[in-house]
Amino acid sequence: MKRVVIIGGGFGGLTAAKSLLKYDLEIVIIDKTNHHLFQPLLYQVATAALSPADIAHPIRSSFSGNKNVSVFLGEVAKIDTENKKVFFNGTSINYDYLIVAVGSRHHYFGNPEWEKFAPGLKTLNDALQIREKILLSLETAEKIQDVKERKKYLNYVIVGGGPTGVELAGAIGEIVNKNLIKDYRNIDPKQTKVYLVEAIPKILTPFPDKLSLRAKKDLEELAVEVILNAKVTSVNENGVQLGDRFIETKNIIWAAGNQAMPLLKNLNTELDSAGRAIVNHDLTVDNDPYVFVIGDAAAVKDDNGKLLSAIAPAAMQQGKYVAKIIGENISKEQRKKFKYKDRGIMATIGKAKAVAVIKGFNLSGLFAWLAWCVIHILFLISFRNRFRVMAEWMWYYITNRPGIRLIVKYTKENN
Amino acid sequence: MKRVVIIGGGFGGLTAAKSLLKYDLEIVIIDKTNHHLFQPLLYQVATAALSPADIAHPIRSSFSGNKNVSVFLGEVAKIDTENKKVFFNGTSINYDYLIVAVGSRHHYFGNPEWEKFAPGLKTLNDALQIREKILLSLETAEKIQDVKERKKYLNYVIVGGGPTGVELAGAIGEIVNKNLIKDYRNIDPKQTKVYLVEAIPKILTPFPDKLSLRAKKDLEELAVEVILNAKVTSVNENGVQLGDRFIETKNIIWAAGNQAMPLLKNLNTELDSAGRAIVNHDLTVDNDPYVFVIGDAAAVKDDNGKLLSAIAPAAMQQGKYVAKIIGENISKEQRKKFKYKDRGIMATIGKAKAVAVIKGFNLSGLFAWLAWCVIHILFLISFRNRFRVMAEWMWYYITNRPGIRLIVKYTKENN
Repeated sequence: MKRVVIIGGGFGGLTAAKSLLKYDLEIVIIDKTNHHLFQPLLYQVATAALSPADIAHPIRSSFSGNKNVSVFLGEVAKIDTENKKVFFNGTSINYDYLIVAVGSRHHYFGNPEWEKFAPGLKTLNDALQIREKILLSLETAEKIQDVKERKKYLNYVIVGGGPTGVELAGAIGEIVNKNLIKDYRNIDPKQTKVYLVEAIPKILTPFPDKLSLRAKKDLEELAVEVILNAKVTSVNENGVQLGDRFIETKNIIWAAGNQAMPLLKNLNTELDSAGRAIVNHDLTVDNDPYVFVIGDAAAVKDDNGKLLSAIAPAAMQQGKYVAKIIGENISKEQRKKFKYKDRGIMATIGKAKAVAVIKGFNLSGLFAWLAWCVIHILFLISFRNRFRVMAEWMWYYITNRPGIRLIVKYTKENN
Repeated sequence: MKRVVIIGGGFGGLTAAKSLLKYDLEIVIIDKTNHHLFQPLLYQVATAALSPADIAHPIRSSFSGNKNVSVFLGEVAKIDTENKKVFFNGTSINYDYLIVAVGSRHHYFGNPEWEKFAPGLKTLNDALQIREKILLSLETAEKIQDVKERKKYLNYVIVGGGPTGVELAGAIGEIVNKNLIKDYRNIDPKQTKVYLVEAIPKILTPFPDKLSLRAKKDLEELAVEVILNAKVTSVNENGVQLGDRFIETKNIIWAAGNQAMPLLKNLNTELDSAGRAIVNHDLTVDNDPYVFVIGDAAAVKDDNGKLLSAIAPAAMQQGKYVAKIIGENISKEQRKKFKYKDRGIMATIGKAKAVAVIKGFNLSGLFAWLAWCVIHILFLISFRNRFRVMAEWMWYYITNRPGIRLIVKYTKENN
């Protein structure tokens, strides 16, 4: 039986594995975590609205009944394409086909030292760290008597005006300006301030200008100040420098820019400036019809020559496409070009506030928000998660208070 | 307005605060965490059945509408009873009355170095660490080809046969022997083994012998080996030494023995061998009618001269009792002795398996288990938590699979 090794259990890898189930193949999934993560809702874990288990599901649970599927928790250290071998955690495994679906990490444009002060949001661990940071900051502010010193803990700066940045800014705006403040005695809501910083002249780049402006207006209603055309020139423990403007803050979240995983360098294929593998029209790497790269790790262009966004639908369609080639053993010459079907894009800003482009139609406000809710519930990985997220959202909608406001690790340095 | 400072937001502290609300007093709660924790269900977080947020609730949320209550996240460093002052996180606060409800920690009978290999279970952070340890161990076992080496990762040793130890052993027995194993390809359920180690001749000391034996039988049905009369003489990274028997394991959990917090030494009052404050009949410390110690931190005896167990009902009754004295400003001479009303004791072993003594009646099996479920649901701190725990339990009951099987921090040393 031929063996397919899949590196990464995200949207691309998991869809590929599921699509391969109907063929007579051995499937091996290696992931750095033990769970598939529904990343589009990760910002809600970071903002205390959802629990980690609401949006994550053990990868091996998805394949309980499939004896031909093995799942390993491991970090791939090396790919040897010549000998068709993958090395991880002191062991190695041979493959007939390899699917590389390793995703991406945030990056700091050559300033890795900023990460310490401005964490990014890609994993559950990232989200929990941001949650603790936000909550600890409010706790610290409550204890500080000096108004000027307290202000630092009540300023929130989110860098990057893509969907993650917008969603984070909106959610934090709702929390600090409306929901939570009545739990505190010394914090004046007027003192709290959320900033969303974007280097170019608009937020939500892939959206039409009209919707970008609408999102900006929605954010401003949540008391978020959107700063456009502002490039971060420095980040330190006391705040963010934007050219000649300095914002004092103990809370910086980084949602600007992705970079592919260094593991891709192992593939001996050309990478683009963000470190993504430049793939052939069948998503294989140069000169190797058995190695595919999909999802955020691949630089794939649409028919207009525009690079596909790093979004779940693209990764999932690629996973399906690759599974078919492998399962039906389609020879290199006969493989048709991968074609992305655009199902639309959407971003939410807050309660009853969202923007979306679906089949060419621009949506905003309540209707876009409802569409956003329904689609995100539907695409969650299990019935269990769908039920839980729905219950949490209803709770939040009714009480206006995010439910998961726990500080689990007591970080002394912040107190 | 007189100020009552309460150190600790556990069962004792929180009940005291709530009972004080009806009086015209300023109330300040200081806790090391930001949440009240429903500790009786903590083992279910450690065994992946519940999420942290299911059993924890932000302390300040309980007092949102009470402007006379302030809550601070902080660690009390010093109590100055002479000047009626409490020092925490670089600041200090004066009190008219002080309630010390600081709980306890597990202790290692003079071998603190064992903690690294045998973590205890008192906080959410403890529970998450144990959860990661158990799940990582299975992941590691799945990768190991050598059967003898693999066995180490499939042995689980729980030290201490009190309620926590019994509940942990039962839950881990259910997980590793029944529920999860079908998710793994290389792990043979016959290889997994759970041991419960107790130094004296019976488990569940406060229970009648008949129920202790029943609990032991129930555990054995879950393939847990109960080792009585066995004292741990050494713990290291490869296992546990019990006299001349050595059990090889990478998974040791410590559920033996409590020790009160060192902060109590500040009170200038006599402590017992476990570090608890020996209190007067009105729960005050020697020569100070304004300082009360309640809950696990106090050594309180019942009418028969027997020390009260460190359980929630005792702490809650003490919190209420103390609040009345403070609220009604009862003078030292007129304070009646604290009397503990025994509402019963219970422990669960697994699905449809529990033991209980309620109003002198011995219960076991399904009926005791149902009583256990109902009582634990009822005493959860909020409607939200009650709803969530019920939903999780129903899920677990139907699917036989704990739902929160997430490894969030990828601990490299285990891989």
